[in-house]
Amino acid sequence: MADLKTSDTSALKVNQSELWQRYNEFKAKNLKLDMTRGRPCAEQLDLSLGLLDCLGQKDYKAADGTDCRNYGGAGGGVDGLPEIKELFARYLEVEPEEIIIGGNSSLALMYDLIVRAMLHGVPGSATPWGRLPKVKFLCPSPGYDRHFAICEDLGIEMITVTLNDDGPDMDEVERLVAGDDSIKGIWCVPRYSNPTGITFSDEIVDRFAQMKTKAPDFRILWDNAYAVHHLNGRIEPLKNLLTACKDAGNPDRVFIFGSTSKISFAGAGIAVIGSSATNINWFRKHLGVQTIGPDKLNQLRHIRFFSNMDGIMAQMQKHAAIIKPKFEMVFEILESELGGKNIAFYNKPNGGYFISLNTMDGCAKKVVAMAAEAGVALTKAGATYPYGNDPWDRNIRIAPTMPPLAELKQAMELVAICIQLASIDKLLESRI
Amino acid sequence: MADLKTSDTSALKVNQSELWQRYNEFKAKNLKLDMTRGRPCAEQLDLSLGLLDCLGQKDYKAADGTDCRNYGGAGGGVDGLPEIKELFARYLEVEPEEIIIGGNSSLALMYDLIVRAMLHGVPGSATPWGRLPKVKFLCPSPGYDRHFAICEDLGIEMITVTLNDDGPDMDEVERLVAGDDSIKGIWCVPRYSNPTGITFSDEIVDRFAQMKTKAPDFRILWDNAYAVHHLNGRIEPLKNLLTACKDAGNPDRVFIFGSTSKISFAGAGIAVIGSSATNINWFRKHLGVQTIGPDKLNQLRHIRFFSNMDGIMAQMQKHAAIIKPKFEMVFEILESELGGKNIAFYNKPNGGYFISLNTMDGCAKKVVAMAAEAGVALTKAGATYPYGNDPWDRNIRIAPTMPPLAELKQAMELVAICIQLASIDKLLESRI
Repeated sequence: MADLKTSDTSALKVNQSELWQRYNEFKAKNLKLDMTRGRPCAEQLDLSLGLLDCLGQKDYKAADGTDCRNYGGAGGGVDGLPEIKELFARYLEVEPEEIIIGGNSSLALMYDLIVRAMLHGVPGSATPWGRLPKVKFLCPSPGYDRHFAICEDLGIEMITVTLNDDGPDMDEVERLVAGDDSIKGIWCVPRYSNPTGITFSDEIVDRFAQMKTKAPDFRILWDNAYAVHHLNGRIEPLKNLLTACKDAGNPDRVFIFGSTSKISFAGAGIAVIGSSATNINWFRKHLGVQTIGPDKLNQLRHIRFFSNMDGIMAQMQKHAAIIKPKFEMVFEILESELGGKNIAFYNKPNGGYFISLNTMDGCAKKVVAMAAEAGVALTKAGATYPYGNDPWDRNIRIAPTMPPLAELKQAMELVAICIQLASIDKLLESRI
Repeated sequence: MADLKTSDTSALKVNQSELWQRYNEFKAKNLKLDMTRGRPCAEQLDLSLGLLDCLGQKDYKAADGTDCRNYGGAGGGVDGLPEIKELFARYLEVEPEEIIIGGNSSLALMYDLIVRAMLHGVPGSATPWGRLPKVKFLCPSPGYDRHFAICEDLGIEMITVTLNDDGPDMDEVERLVAGDDSIKGIWCVPRYSNPTGITFSDEIVDRFAQMKTKAPDFRILWDNAYAVHHLNGRIEPLKNLLTACKDAGNPDRVFIFGSTSKISFAGAGIAVIGSSATNINWFRKHLGVQTIGPDKLNQLRHIRFFSNMDGIMAQMQKHAAIIKPKFEMVFEILESELGGKNIAFYNKPNGGYFISLNTMDGCAKKVVAMAAEAGVALTKAGATYPYGNDPWDRNIRIAPTMPPLAELKQAMELVAICIQLASIDKLLESRI
């Protein structure tokens, strides 16, 4: 198809009027489709139905005899059943003493971690972060809006860093952390990044482990949310950052997060935090004041249902079989509608939950607004940047997993129409 | 039996040697009984076995159609299913818009509330509490050690206030809060108080609602942990503090907490926080950054299993039938071993989980240590006071619910022997 940027104005205008007609046809259908968040679809959730009845009335004891219906258990029960710690230590690639099992939300573990840092400081802090005149975090972007929301809620200044195809721009990261001791942390989704789907290269991991930070208590928040969420039957390798940090003499630099929210049930799964024993012991000390412990029955359900890592990996293949056609549908529509027109650029991830789509500069908000007006709710434009402010107004996060294929097809056709209309508007404006 | 304080020294010495013999006999049995915490026993937990399989593979939708296996739901799903909010609004005696359903831990709701106050301030705060030179809480004592631990963890100075049989010493409370704006809160367990078992009178509730506080952002943390935990078939009335606060023109003064930890499963139940809509909206705003939402499947289990308040009240009668004989056993042993000896004083609560026992001054630590040496672990002496420091070294919290009756009998006989031995030691010392 023709590059719109070099098409002549009259051709653009003909194209525009055809597109408006299609847009209005969509609008007349009164669609109501929600693609705002990365939610699993009903078929994916059905994969875990066994979790709902796997315990039964006679099965409530852990391997060590702990009655999971009651308070207590190994080590007071504050950080999880031994067998679930063992399983998720394998999942996170850490040792069992380097993990704490949380409740149902890894986001809450991240939030609570930063809260503890604000109120107490982390191991190695001279001062609680909250008593410093300023605390800053680096935010490789496009990134995850809920990470950014945590910083905003806690009054942490965000500095946008470019996220490349192999990870954050490390020249920029190294320069910033070496020169400013108020920079205390960085957010990372290192595998199948939200939303761009990229995986950090070994070199990037090593540079994270080895870089000099002016703040002695700098921490990397390594949200490995999509650790096993492969789409294409092949695994993009990710070097173990905790090991790399130990090897580099910075053993306490990283906290790793994970959850089963997109393995078992979203919001009714299990969240985990992994780090050096020093960091984990510090976290546990405050955790034991915050709560008597997590829901051990839900941990027991997960052990019964998955058994081991093989069980988890087999489940993930079933997830992939359900959602891969959805990703492919998105690529197909984008290609057939926008291919060759030079107005939209997107990744084709090998895992994760999102497709990151860049329009021409200055078009994303308009596209999202037009789609909403015709009944398709997308993630808010700008959400993938700190403060909801995409400096180029171009990034749109596509979350293809939740809608059924037929609806997804409609939604993406509409999105493609909106992109073309917004682009043509832009091009025509520039020619006035 | 004879008052030991007026017994002659030779009689005390005979008594002492008999008691040592009994103590050593106990020690030889190699008991290993744990009465450290207020845990339900296995029979109580069996009452809720139906929770384990009440959902099944076809039952995962809330009344409004929300798929509880996924993120989302009414209002984004951050504060609970409508039907569980309705049930627990009734439980807490608040309106559905005045409640948030948390995870499995009411302690975590309290901790997180104070954390938010430290970082942001509560509605009406001029400054986040954490930026003030000092924050103080009033701690009616004997009280709950985990409340005190939260203050200690967050650097909040605790001021001990006397807890009388009808509630805290309000003359003292009123004087303190009127004169010091760094006093930001007070801990209360208003019904069947932990550990003294008393219930606050209407007059105390009214004085709490009406008192003048120098801090405009003073808050009462009303931990109604034993709201329906009646033991003797009669309900000790407790006036609704939220309503009283509204009537007194201080609508935002109180946060109320509750949980099903001692209704369904301890640590696998549901926790709730109730307050004015202003306070609740403030709490929800930060909660929605901390987490995508609580485990809705566990909420659904609780709705299926209990249906309504009648279901909860029927369950509580079954709990009472199991644990009342345990409380009576404790009274029986204490009466038969210590009656008339004028060395120990205890309450006979109409609900809750504890018996608060006062020894002669200066004996509690010794009693707890001696019992531990003979195989019975009690709550640490001093735990019921701020900083673990009982100024009279006399209060011991007896937690009778967990051990089977036969074990409880043994444990209490041992405790009674230890009390007598420690008392006689004390009396003999004073006569040298």
